[in-house]
Amino acid sequence: MNGLLTDLYELTMSAGYFEADKSEERATFELSIRKLPPNRNFVIAAGLAQAVEYLLAVGFAGEDIDYLRTLPQFSRVSKAFFERLRAFRFTGDLFAAPEGTPIFSGEPILTVRAPLIEAQVVETYLLATIGYQSLVTTKAARIVETARGRGVIEFGTRRAHSPEAGLLAARAAYIGGCLGTSNTLAGRRFGIPVYGTAAHSWVLAFPNETEAFAQLQKLLGEAATYVVDTYDSLEGTRRAAALGKPLWGIRLDSGDLLELSRATRLILDEAGLTEAHIMASGDLDEYKIRRLVEAGAPIDAFGVGTELVTSADAPVLPVVYKLVELETRTGRKYTAKFSEEKVTLPGAKQIYRFADYDEITCAWECRQYEPEAQAPQAILQPVLVNGQLVAELPDAASARSYAAKAISRLPESCRRLVDPEAYPIRYSDQLLALAEQARKSAY
Amino acid sequence: MNGLLTDLYELTMSAGYFEADKSEERATFELSIRKLPPNRNFVIAAGLAQAVEYLLAVGFAGEDIDYLRTLPQFSRVSKAFFERLRAFRFTGDLFAAPEGTPIFSGEPILTVRAPLIEAQVVETYLLATIGYQSLVTTKAARIVETARGRGVIEFGTRRAHSPEAGLLAARAAYIGGCLGTSNTLAGRRFGIPVYGTAAHSWVLAFPNETEAFAQLQKLLGEAATYVVDTYDSLEGTRRAAALGKPLWGIRLDSGDLLELSRATRLILDEAGLTEAHIMASGDLDEYKIRRLVEAGAPIDAFGVGTELVTSADAPVLPVVYKLVELETRTGRKYTAKFSEEKVTLPGAKQIYRFADYDEITCAWECRQYEPEAQAPQAILQPVLVNGQLVAELPDAASARSYAAKAISRLPESCRRLVDPEAYPIRYSDQLLALAEQARKSAY
Repeated sequence: MNGLLTDLYELTMSAGYFEADKSEERATFELSIRKLPPNRNFVIAAGLAQAVEYLLAVGFAGEDIDYLRTLPQFSRVSKAFFERLRAFRFTGDLFAAPEGTPIFSGEPILTVRAPLIEAQVVETYLLATIGYQSLVTTKAARIVETARGRGVIEFGTRRAHSPEAGLLAARAAYIGGCLGTSNTLAGRRFGIPVYGTAAHSWVLAFPNETEAFAQLQKLLGEAATYVVDTYDSLEGTRRAAALGKPLWGIRLDSGDLLELSRATRLILDEAGLTEAHIMASGDLDEYKIRRLVEAGAPIDAFGVGTELVTSADAPVLPVVYKLVELETRTGRKYTAKFSEEKVTLPGAKQIYRFADYDEITCAWECRQYEPEAQAPQAILQPVLVNGQLVAELPDAASARSYAAKAISRLPESCRRLVDPEAYPIRYSDQLLALAEQARKSAY
Repeated sequence: MNGLLTDLYELTMSAGYFEADKSEERATFELSIRKLPPNRNFVIAAGLAQAVEYLLAVGFAGEDIDYLRTLPQFSRVSKAFFERLRAFRFTGDLFAAPEGTPIFSGEPILTVRAPLIEAQVVETYLLATIGYQSLVTTKAARIVETARGRGVIEFGTRRAHSPEAGLLAARAAYIGGCLGTSNTLAGRRFGIPVYGTAAHSWVLAFPNETEAFAQLQKLLGEAATYVVDTYDSLEGTRRAAALGKPLWGIRLDSGDLLELSRATRLILDEAGLTEAHIMASGDLDEYKIRRLVEAGAPIDAFGVGTELVTSADAPVLPVVYKLVELETRTGRKYTAKFSEEKVTLPGAKQIYRFADYDEITCAWECRQYEPEAQAPQAILQPVLVNGQLVAELPDAASARSYAAKAISRLPESCRRLVDPEAYPIRYSDQLLALAEQARKSAY
């Protein structure tokens, strides 16, 4: 992993820390979400596997360092700094919420504790990979919840923000509850079920629609799914139905999906194909799916692409990565930002998840709980220690089950599609005291 | 480039074409935008360099083919198909609008002509890479236009939809007119100017703000830019001003940017630092920048991240890739979709750009123009012929100049930030006749 895939200021700061003899001071940074997007009061953490892959492999090649030396920003920097970069690898600790964990406003998704230079350089990549996958996993969970048991398949790679985004979106959507993806590489790399039959171009490539459907049936048999709207959805469905079994069903991809699903259901049933399925697609999101489900549309599965992989109703997850603690030569410093809009809390933290609220504490607190009460779950778990992997990373399928269970435990009011209620978050007395202390010593 | 980074249906269709002895029929596909996003009536084409890189390198490794053979969708497929995949490379032609070209609604950005199987497999990757870069280049052009000569720097990688998206966004934003990027790898790989000084964590890592600023000045000298809002923007500016020259200036990153820019300008001027610059950042987009510029905020440069790289006001560019022509054994077939919402025009096309309108024609038309008229520009240019590169791909800097010139030629009414007017597009008689003919023979 190329260490240059980072913001230049991470590298200029690293040079500056090095020159000021601060680069090896042990720093603790926290990755969290500044403000949740509209209609969300939690996100599902995802992307940890890719973050860890990056941390285990990040470094600088000789030519990359040569490039940096050509930049005016490094003209005053000593040669020793570039030697430090040449030896760069991540030797720190990582604590993280397991993939699939619901995370509420202000809660850390992960904590990095490492020499300042290392913790600083990895910021940009961690934010982009955790932020994007968490965004899509959250969107997928919303869509899957709204589909109320009907299958949801992700097929958005083509409209994702770059091919790699499509690959990661497939993984994230699966963790969020989708049945699978159209992205073949995601299937191979992450063990995700892959789906796909034929597009409009298939229909156009044959002399007529019936011939195209017949060829598809020959190829796919009981998996054959006919996209029926190349010319006319009802005519297309009649042509598909005339071929009879085997087939999985039809896909509606445009038009009034409620009306068309009713009309095509009738056509299929009258042809004796009562077990044939109807899949709907075409710029669907949780809001459109809710209307279809509430109206009782006879749709068995949804294909969701663009709106899912771009999280189009809320395309931004404002992830931040903040220095909360620094072990300087003159002592430990707890840091936070106090500018009006962007207040943060100092110090490494832990999240304790109780049955109906979360409590955020200092990481070092040993909280005592009533003996009869159920022990809360400590959300942030060690993943890397001294740069070495100390935990088994779950595969996408385990993260998916984990997410499903965790979401089902949340109150209905908190999972609502629009205007969900905030989940109760408490802060420990010691954390609040630390914040007050940091504020006083800030100037 | 892994051929599996595609939708599964591209591969199932490929198998079906192969089994139906159609996989080597010469197909023409067109990549265009179905419907322009809100407040846009053109997009700036970008991403061609990455599309070509992909087409020159795409293929399937043995293990990838082994994976496909495990999928139920391929259980009926003959061994010969997998041999075809093993030998897969792109041997077709590519015609494309140069990067930086304004493209209007319905106009093709590129045309692929290749054996059906090849043209089909590459669909997903081409859409994702061209679509995303065009989206960001367009957003950047809007922001740069609104900044009216003030510099705009892109620093959105951390909030991009994956690290690769950040890298491509940096390139796209530069083509769209940004001065440069914070993404160091983009600087190295694409020759884009890189910018970056220090973050809030820098300020927090030192005993106090003055010490942090002094160290930055030592490191960067006349490039030193102090982010002043860690504690209080006005106090921060006073501390920066007290250090005096050399400095580039300060960066405001939160609060009321209009008020703060006026107040900090005063502080800097009173300290005799009349040449110190003020940069503003913090969730900025073209709408917020317009308000600041119109109010006369003394801001010299804007840093734009999240809103730019996610194109947050319009995160979706509905790029499509449609079969328009197929040379079957029984003759040439012109194809189009006629379902209500998604009508397309058949046949390979050319765009002729006249001084004040575009005309879309069949690709094979030799249109005669009045001898005294200026010859129109043919937008789609050959890039690959028989899989070989026949054109020099411009670097990002040339694409950037090209875009700036092309945008400046468009009428003001068409470049408006909100509710721009549609640009006049004509269709040649022969293209319309072909469409009518295709519609009649469609069923």
